[in-house]
Amino acid sequence: MKIVLATGNAGKVREFADLLAGSGHEILPQSDFQVREAEETGLSFVENAILKARNAAEQTGLPAMADDSGIEVDALDGAPGIYSARYAGPGADAEQNNTKLLEALKGVPEDRRTARFRCVIAFLRHARDPSPILCEGTWEGAVALRPAGDGGHGYDPVFLVPELGLTAAQISAEEKNRRSHRGQALTSLLAHLGGPR
Amino acid sequence: MKIVLATGNAGKVREFADLLAGSGHEILPQSDFQVREAEETGLSFVENAILKARNAAEQTGLPAMADDSGIEVDALDGAPGIYSARYAGPGADAEQNNTKLLEALKGVPEDRRTARFRCVIAFLRHARDPSPILCEGTWEGAVALRPAGDGGHGYDPVFLVPELGLTAAQISAEEKNRRSHRGQALTSLLAHLGGPR
Repeated sequence: MKIVLATGNAGKVREFADLLAGSGHEILPQSDFQVREAEETGLSFVENAILKARNAAEQTGLPAMADDSGIEVDALDGAPGIYSARYAGPGADAEQNNTKLLEALKGVPEDRRTARFRCVIAFLRHARDPSPILCEGTWEGAVALRPAGDGGHGYDPVFLVPELGLTAAQISAEEKNRRSHRGQALTSLLAHLGGPR
Repeated sequence: MKIVLATGNAGKVREFADLLAGSGHEILPQSDFQVREAEETGLSFVENAILKARNAAEQTGLPAMADDSGIEVDALDGAPGIYSARYAGPGADAEQNNTKLLEALKGVPEDRRTARFRCVIAFLRHARDPSPILCEGTWEGAVALRPAGDGGHGYDPVFLVPELGLTAAQISAEEKNRRSHRGQALTSLLAHLGGPR
């Protein structure tokens, strides 16, 4: 099946392409269709994922999927959460967001820096699909004391995988896909969609 | 836990109360708080369920849940679906909706009247909960040739349970709760919430 991926984030496009390689589904980034990006006005991950996928399905006439994801930091009562991508302000880049997060946690000791990545993927068969397929994944970890690694994207350099003692930006893409919130959500979506893996 | 139930439908309040009896959770209908009903502007069951639960949580300051449900008729391409409650027009009652549905299926033979009830329940810990608990249930059946039974509510009198040869309005509340879309979604929600059954 041809599926439009509703994201403008090159790091996510790469992750989805890796995760869906050999699935029998063809992932087309929405930039191939000059899709105008949706405004993320939802108050929950699932609503934002649906909004973005619907926007892409509407403008392309094809099935579409989107993820909405973020990092929830326990010492910050779950912030930045759904506002992760714009934590340091509208249009903030990953480095600015990571700097703001480390600043917010300054002085918080290692054992109180627990956090998780959360991802909700919505798949819509068409723009008015009343029953989107929804899949979720979480990845438990902690906020590192300083950034490390140059793989991944977003908060990966400051997300510590405790069992490994490495950040998500220090592990291979394969290792990350096996463990990550997005990997889990996408594995679950593939089980719903069927087709070869 | 005290949970506000975001529905103005007396039939649904009864079903939820039955299904949650002994769960350790106290269900308070939103009418107890004079909650102004939310507008169901969503294009999917899940969005409408979230909108309604959020509206109740906002106005009461308590955790809230709502279901959005409907009947999907295959011969009508899934209609009335999310518009089930207002199929015969805004403010339509169950009898008017059922009459319109039977009319729409006039001449459609028994083996082509397959349909399902679908229910999505959203539970929000608070109005800005970014990760609502979402539970879904479906109940496969068919649209009867004519209404039968006076139990249940909504489309129950025209929803045929093929294994029983009876409509959902002809079976006991216990039997319905064991089989129904809403019963399944709520059982799954209770498993998430924990507490005694």
